[in-house]
Amino acid sequence: MGKSVLVLCCEGFEEIEALTVVDVLRRAGVTVTLCSVEGRELMKGSHNIYVKSDKLFGEAEKEGRGYDAVVLPGGLPNAYTLRDSSDVVACVKKFAEDGKLVCAICAAPCVLERAGLLSGRKATSYPGMVKKESCGAYLEDKVVRDGKIITSRGPGTALPFSYEILRALGLESDADKLEKNMIYKV
Amino acid sequence: MGKSVLVLCCEGFEEIEALTVVDVLRRAGVTVTLCSVEGRELMKGSHNIYVKSDKLFGEAEKEGRGYDAVVLPGGLPNAYTLRDSSDVVACVKKFAEDGKLVCAICAAPCVLERAGLLSGRKATSYPGMVKKESCGAYLEDKVVRDGKIITSRGPGTALPFSYEILRALGLESDADKLEKNMIYKV
Repeated sequence: MGKSVLVLCCEGFEEIEALTVVDVLRRAGVTVTLCSVEGRELMKGSHNIYVKSDKLFGEAEKEGRGYDAVVLPGGLPNAYTLRDSSDVVACVKKFAEDGKLVCAICAAPCVLERAGLLSGRKATSYPGMVKKESCGAYLEDKVVRDGKIITSRGPGTALPFSYEILRALGLESDADKLEKNMIYKV
Repeated sequence: MGKSVLVLCCEGFEEIEALTVVDVLRRAGVTVTLCSVEGRELMKGSHNIYVKSDKLFGEAEKEGRGYDAVVLPGGLPNAYTLRDSSDVVACVKKFAEDGKLVCAICAAPCVLERAGLLSGRKATSYPGMVKKESCGAYLEDKVVRDGKIITSRGPGTALPFSYEILRALGLESDADKLEKNMIYKV
């Protein structure tokens, strides 16, 4: 069975972070749902790029039904809106409880912090976006994976973040191939 | 006076390549026009991401009026459609004749090849996308700048390509700052 991944966006999502994940995962045959949390089909990014969502956030998304992973891009106010949505925090907690992958980049690890998922874990974020004491260990690596939690730092780390998500989904050889085919590693 | 850059897209544009340029240049205060060549406001990328264009290709774009640079993202069929459009090839030639910057990444250097702009120049592209004998010297660097022509290799080189465009526009200090702030160079 193919893998299925949910990407949650609100207004002000960071375009490189959100769309690099969608691009890379779809290249590996993953079904990616770019999901609009605020009820508008056309979503405005933090650099005024408008992107059409595939779906609006609903019950299936809140409960994680049919998805193997959830991905939260950064960008403001996107990351704060995600953090302050009780439905999104419930969704992220449900993914974690069900043993599914939870991934956040740049400002978005603050959503995982709010959900209590960084406690006792290695994690990273955009500098200053989560309290170091919220994590088991705060690292400055481009991408940090601790069990089913993957965090990363910013637009400049969106590609290695996406390849790590593929690896955590069991698609290691696709990740290796794409790193070369996309001229990330030459 | 602020700088103004034209990005040309057709169906099948590579999302990372097109939107990384828009994102990075707008962060530096450049006015970026994401321009749809095929007459549709909503443009479909090569990984089924739909992005709203700012403008449709018209006379001002063909003549380069008001723009300091033109940027061509890769992705297929986008790059071939751009190459096979006499209006786009005329536009690219006009930018070059006027001493403006002409930039292409991944498959899109084939448009510059068609316009005769690689002759006698150092250039690069996605492997196999231009004939080596069309260039003065074909290089395998991530980004190659020769005078007012900038070429690059693929989605994995979209960030350094974008920073090089900023530098060629005279925005060196913005490029330096963004490389750090976007966690590209740490």
